Amino acid sequence: MSGNRSIKRVGLLTSGGDAPGMNAAIRAVTRAAIYHGIEVKAIYKGYLGIIEGLFKSFRTEDVSNIIQRGGTILKTARCDEFRTEEGRKKAYANLREQGIDALVVIGGDGSLAGARALAQEYNYPIVGVPATIDNDLQGTDLTIGYTTALNTIVEAVDKIRDTASSHNRLFFVEVMGREAGFLALNGAIAGGCEAAIIPEMHHTTGHIEESISSGFRKTKSSSIVLVTESNEEGGGAMAAAAKVQERFPDYDVRVTILGHIQRGGSPCATDRIMASRMGVAAIEALLEDQRNVMIGYDHDEIVYVPFVKAIKDHKPIHEKLLEIVNILSI
Amino acid sequence: MSGNRSIKRVGLLTSGGDAPGMNAAIRAVTRAAIYHGIEVKAIYKGYLGIIEGLFKSFRTEDVSNIIQRGGTILKTARCDEFRTEEGRKKAYANLREQGIDALVVIGGDGSLAGARALAQEYNYPIVGVPATIDNDLQGTDLTIGYTTALNTIVEAVDKIRDTASSHNRLFFVEVMGREAGFLALNGAIAGGCEAAIIPEMHHTTGHIEESISSGFRKTKSSSIVLVTESNEEGGGAMAAAAKVQERFPDYDVRVTILGHIQRGGSPCATDRIMASRMGVAAIEALLEDQRNVMIGYDHDEIVYVPFVKAIKDHKPIHEKLLEIVNILSI
Amino acid sequence: MSGNRSIKRVGLLTSGGDAPGMNAAIRAVTRAAIYHGIEVKAIYKGYLGIIEGLFKSFRTEDVSNIIQRGGTILKTARCDEFRTEEGRKKAYANLREQGIDALVVIGGDGSLAGARALAQEYNYPIVGVPATIDNDLQGTDLTIGYTTALNTIVEAVDKIRDTASSHNRLFFVEVMGREAGFLALNGAIAGGCEAAIIPEMHHTTGHIEESISSGFRKTKSSSIVLVTESNEEGGGAMAAAAKVQERFPDYDVRVTILGHIQRGGSPCATDRIMASRMGVAAIEALLEDQRNVMIGYDHDEIVYVPFVKAIKDHKPIHEKLLEIVNILSI
Amino acid sequence: MSGNRSIKRVGLLTSGGDAPGMNAAIRAVTRAAIYHGIEVKAIYKGYLGIIEGLFKSFRTEDVSNIIQRGGTILKTARCDEFRTEEGRKKAYANLREQGIDALVVIGGDGSLAGARALAQEYNYPIVGVPATIDNDLQGTDLTIGYTTALNTIVEAVDKIRDTASSHNRLFFVEVMGREAGFLALNGAIAGGCEAAIIPEMHHTTGHIEESISSGFRKTKSSSIVLVTESNEEGGGAMAAAAKVQERFPDYDVRVTILGHIQRGGSPCATDRIMASRMGVAAIEALLEDQRNVMIGYDHDEIVYVPFVKAIKDHKPIHEKLLEIVNILSI
Repeated sequence: MSGNRSIKRVGLLTSGGDAPGMNAAIRAVTRAAIYHGIEVKAIYKGYLGIIEGLFKSFRTEDVSNIIQRGGTILKTARCDEFRTEEGRKKAYANLREQGIDALVVIGGDGSLAGARALAQEYNYPIVGVPATIDNDLQGTDLTIGYTTALNTIVEAVDKIRDTASSHNRLFFVEVMGREAGFLALNGAIAGGCEAAIIPEMHHTTGHIEESISSGFRKTKSSSIVLVTESNEEGGGAMAAAAKVQERFPDYDVRVTILGHIQRGGSPCATDRIMASRMGVAAIEALLEDQRNVMIGYDHDEIVYVPFVKAIKDHKPIHEKLLEIVNILSI
Repeated sequence: MSGNRSIKRVGLLTSGGDAPGMNAAIRAVTRAAIYHGIEVKAIYKGYLGIIEGLFKSFRTEDVSNIIQRGGTILKTARCDEFRTEEGRKKAYANLREQGIDALVVIGGDGSLAGARALAQEYNYPIVGVPATIDNDLQGTDLTIGYTTALNTIVEAVDKIRDTASSHNRLFFVEVMGREAGFLALNGAIAGGCEAAIIPEMHHTTGHIEESISSGFRKTKSSSIVLVTESNEEGGGAMAAAAKVQERFPDYDVRVTILGHIQRGGSPCATDRIMASRMGVAAIEALLEDQRNVMIGYDHDEIVYVPFVKAIKDHKPIHEKLLEIVNILSI
Repeated sequence: MSGNRSIKRVGLLTSGGDAPGMNAAIRAVTRAAIYHGIEVKAIYKGYLGIIEGLFKSFRTEDVSNIIQRGGTILKTARCDEFRTEEGRKKAYANLREQGIDALVVIGGDGSLAGARALAQEYNYPIVGVPATIDNDLQGTDLTIGYTTALNTIVEAVDKIRDTASSHNRLFFVEVMGREAGFLALNGAIAGGCEAAIIPEMHHTTGHIEESISSGFRKTKSSSIVLVTESNEEGGGAMAAAAKVQERFPDYDVRVTILGHIQRGGSPCATDRIMASRMGVAAIEALLEDQRNVMIGYDHDEIVYVPFVKAIKDHKPIHEKLLEIVNILSI
Repeated sequence: MSGNRSIKRVGLLTSGGDAPGMNAAIRAVTRAAIYHGIEVKAIYKGYLGIIEGLFKSFRTEDVSNIIQRGGTILKTARCDEFRTEEGRKKAYANLREQGIDALVVIGGDGSLAGARALAQEYNYPIVGVPATIDNDLQGTDLTIGYTTALNTIVEAVDKIRDTASSHNRLFFVEVMGREAGFLALNGAIAGGCEAAIIPEMHHTTGHIEESISSGFRKTKSSSIVLVTESNEEGGGAMAAAAKVQERFPDYDVRVTILGHIQRGGSPCATDRIMASRMGVAAIEALLEDQRNVMIGYDHDEIVYVPFVKAIKDHKPIHEKLLEIVNILSI
């Protein structure tokens, strides 16, 4: 492969909330770089690590036996300093000092926004790899970690469904995604749930209360409703349960809160393949002189998505999916 | 096998909270009975089903393909009526009317208490099979469902541990067992957790607060603490989290509530083997004229445990295990 | 929804090798039909069931609690008779006698070929839902069951990789797909394997022998190679292992044959969502007067693919993926 | 705790075939030693590592985040030299040179035999921790790894059972244990299999051929038989399948060979708890001046088992279990 031979050393970091498959992406970026003759400087703790100088040279064996592991061996951390111009100046200086010619950033929308700022201010080549369980980035069919999180939710729902059930038992299961209902909505379809309460629909139990009032189908055993966590104190599943319980005191209402379980676990095949292909593509993008782009997955093909497009606004919910939840819970 | 030839038809029910492996026990009781020439009347919804007449003759194929399923195909239900003498009188009459000569009850301590009352009042042969995720029955090393629930807890903890972590993040994971800390304590050992808050230790966050005050080991990443659910409103993990958060506002405290996830899922090999052996033993016990006993598992051998002993009082926690949690979290 | 009101009763069958998610598709077709006021006649044992008259009316509760189950509650069977004109004549007569106005066929390429023949000969409305772990149908990004099978393979590879390893141990893992290397190739990427031997590459161990000759990377622990099963007696992993062992007697070569494990298991979220969406779409297609089409999944949208296109010829392997296996195993 | 204060530094190694839970035992031994003020020298590659000098001082954080991992971070290796007096002499000299006062050996019967030889020849304190998936050690109810391997087998059988089945399809699943049928026999019970072919019963397909001849129960779907691997070339499942296929050419006979899948995987809760308790007990045994003993698990309590007793002869199969397979497959 011909291409940009001016990149001799690439920095690599993970940033934002953990997503299963980040390690698979780290492995792919590292090995693809080495394969193409580029050195890899791993950076620990995300942008904080650039500022604090947490660099380590990676060889191919440094990423052995990690493709199957949840979390990220490079850790992530919040870094308020990097949000300031001053912080990014320092970061850029450190990158230069380390001889790092380009950066690969693995993370979600906040991470890519940071990447974009640094890239613009210093005309510095950065490629992003979308990794977030929220699946809320534009320009890519899927983000790394989303499919695994969905599987985790579905396995939890399956177990709850197993339990003996009476016609008037109602389970609320709280899932992540306070600004994007992908996990709740698709989780509800895959879990065979009765409903999903998602932020795009303005968080309401009205639909469920109506179903209870009119009587769920008589042959139904217990009902399961997925609820996204809430930004507001006391929102989410606990609030939904309290509201329904108050109006229907005879109902047996139970709550499960999945929490960080959804961010961990061994990545599923889909996330590993995507992470592997995207990681290789990130290095190839740099070799092709791409910069300020996120690697996207479009129809089983790799595409380059400008940062500005990827993080522009909320990816919309597929309305048909709401209808499907209704059809399938009759 | 010689034995009690007066039993020609046996009733079979599951009762109490669901426990993984109940179906494996149903299968074993059914097939062992048929193997020994005894008819099986399955009873739906536990004791309620005796009173309401929910009987169904079971053949060997009625229990095909259920050994691996969570929940119970016979369902369970609360039955306040059976707690009264009047209710049990009606139940006994119905059992007689169906020509049911003996009963096998699969369930926990409440279920066995019911069995004991019926057995005593009418000199009626009943054998119990211990199935509860709480593992709180005396006279048996393990109860059916406990080991699977433990595995479910441990898988959840593993996923939480995967997630990127800072030194001052604390996860509380609420597990079942409001009167018995087996799940929390053994879950903490198996999950590599920092501590367990269990009812036997009077539910306190003191130990955790002390660890925070003195600073957890510096090389530790985030800490995970298992907490049993509480009988009191607002107890359990939410209360523990609030308490710690109030005292240590800089700590990042997160909560997961597992809830009914712990009651479902495909039973693990241990629960299936135990359920299979106990189910066969329940029929053999009846053939040996045993009655008013629970089948127990003692040192890899089947034993008969009088009901009165099985449900007498709380099975104590192994104190050494508390020490082991401490040793292993250094 | 307006549409074809002449369809009052739809037949539903599964055919060909089992694929996880078939039950989710059965559930979706059944409920979508009922939702749209169409009766459902379930047909057991595939095309054989049409000829033998294995029909059963399905209500919404007949498909309760099956979304999570592997296999197919409708069973499948070989039916040589249906491959003859005579057989299809009989089948058509039986469908008419049952008042079945249209058919939904869930299965792979052989099943769709049968559907196409029947549809053409009698101008009979049939819609196909692609379900096969081989992922070898044209016009759809994915087939139902493929992603679950891939996860099963990857979990197996993970366990093998766990085991202690010396530099000269080599594992061959045989996977399905005797005519399509999708499972082996993508499984190799997701499993972090050293190589894949696939039918499209003419089944050879040459690449592996070369790697051994030149010495795998010294820091590598044991190597894992995926091999597709073979049509020839004594092909597949056993043959590959024997060949390598003969040339390199010092190597410790081990074989795992996954076999039918890959056809079972609870479907993953992706397969359930796809099955749910495709099942609903199959009924909607009939309402829109579509016939002789397979439901496809194209870029997260539902499309209609004419049978003739779907089963035309082999879906090609993405050549880039072969390169990725090589890059990532350095 | 009072006790043997002369032990200041302990060596720790894993040996023999991998068993899930070895890492949990490594963690427990390491932390218990440090807790009691004893230094830990980890030894890589088992006995080979003593001879080759592969020592590393372990701190508590060296065993962080490994409790859930399959395999062993210390690796294992064959070491023919250690089987000779000369080799053990060299090993002893190296241990002395490193100031290692006692040894903890985690492994199966071969490993304990080696430990015993070294201990006797040099009056050197060694404690064994039983870890082998074969469960073939005397004096302990369970060995570390056995329960996880059993779960792995059962999950595989579940998936095979899912697949559509005809009355005359027969699956042979080959499992480990060429000299001990624990995995096959208990796996057959837990998997709901029709039969197990185990070494203790002299490896024969006679029972299965008889069942086929007399016709399996008519309502049975396909049958699954577990077979232990064989020492003889061409034994195991392949041989059994060929034999049955030859006599019953109409039968559809399929083979799965699990192989090393059974040695890997995240340890289940039971194995982790046992490994944790045994690891702590190993250090406490040394403090109590125990030597030449294996830690055993007897009836939920820790016991000390002299090496000579632990490895004396084959642990017998519980004959009742064979009867239970028969009863439950009617």
